[in-house]
Amino acid sequence: MDIKFDSKIFSLYLVTDRSLMSAKTLEEAVERAVDGGCTIVQLREKELNSREFFNTAVSLKKLLERRGVPLIINDRVDIALAANADGVHLGQNDLPLAQARRLLGRERIIGVTAPTLSLAIEAESGGADYIGVGAIFGTTTKSNAKKNSIENLGEIAHTVKIPVIAIGGINSTNISLLAGSGISGAAVVSGIIAKDNITDASKELLDILRSEVL
Amino acid sequence: MDIKFDSKIFSLYLVTDRSLMSAKTLEEAVERAVDGGCTIVQLREKELNSREFFNTAVSLKKLLERRGVPLIINDRVDIALAANADGVHLGQNDLPLAQARRLLGRERIIGVTAPTLSLAIEAESGGADYIGVGAIFGTTTKSNAKKNSIENLGEIAHTVKIPVIAIGGINSTNISLLAGSGISGAAVVSGIIAKDNITDASKELLDILRSEVL
Repeated sequence: MDIKFDSKIFSLYLVTDRSLMSAKTLEEAVERAVDGGCTIVQLREKELNSREFFNTAVSLKKLLERRGVPLIINDRVDIALAANADGVHLGQNDLPLAQARRLLGRERIIGVTAPTLSLAIEAESGGADYIGVGAIFGTTTKSNAKKNSIENLGEIAHTVKIPVIAIGGINSTNISLLAGSGISGAAVVSGIIAKDNITDASKELLDILRSEVL
Repeated sequence: MDIKFDSKIFSLYLVTDRSLMSAKTLEEAVERAVDGGCTIVQLREKELNSREFFNTAVSLKKLLERRGVPLIINDRVDIALAANADGVHLGQNDLPLAQARRLLGRERIIGVTAPTLSLAIEAESGGADYIGVGAIFGTTTKSNAKKNSIENLGEIAHTVKIPVIAIGGINSTNISLLAGSGISGAAVVSGIIAKDNITDASKELLDILRSEVL
């Protein structure tokens, strides 16, 4: 298979959450996060209707394309295709990986949430481009997310060949605990988007990631 | 443009609503409705996650394909494509028609909810295959649907060339009031799916439609 991307694009992975935003608009929050060094953005919307979700995706794609930052859409393969996003992120309750790949083609990125080693191996052999593992430090943003351990994260990251991203309650205080786990990046929600200074928060996280973790 | 279908397929158009079901499973309810003569089925799910929605669509497609009845998916273009359904129905808050057409191709059916004449003309010129107009008799199943008149329905149906389907509170008592409106079919939710005998309810509605309305 062709290499679609350098795994460095996953270093600091912003997942949006409109309900936690400190900025006035989602576009503003994302722009500030990218100013601070976020390397990839996942648009996650659980309340918007399809038209609003699509319009937001189009608006973020325009903003991110200029800066060379990929846009990933949570769950909705049709929104990703319609907005010409760079890929999707699938949870275990979303469309099956095989169906998503058939619709998205080989070029677009597909990430899969795989909290266990067996799910991670299954996702890799099914053609996922990266795996999300969590919730590493617990989370306030996803009430149904089960706690996961850094040991389990490390086992997954050292077993599969595709990039592994840690997620769940990651912030500037605990992010250095991920050192040595073998991850390619950290996905952050409230640790960026809920901060008063989104740019500085992103910079701080990226500095620690680059100097201590990746 | 090629003719994709005979407008008779729209005669009795079942829209599913899991919360109103008298049958044990949605598959059972749909099977009984088709036994009674429903000519097309729209799967409408607002609470299921994508995986459950997809699995239900696959299961209904299998059931309906054997009987030559088209399956339309409400809102979700990706679910329609993944489950190989026959088309989608788009509300004004769903993906724009142009985007849906690009993703679905020319062969699949796209219906659009268009409660006013100007929206109906816009949908027709945008490439919709049929138009849904409601809520004709008020509805208990869609709290945000605005009331529409039979006069307005008739004006739309006599203006656009594509099939027009009436929806909203249609049951065996009021369905004959649609006579002369120029519609190609009636879409029914609770008037079928909430009935104890779904097959008989469908038969009764189809009889009145064929003898008095279509």
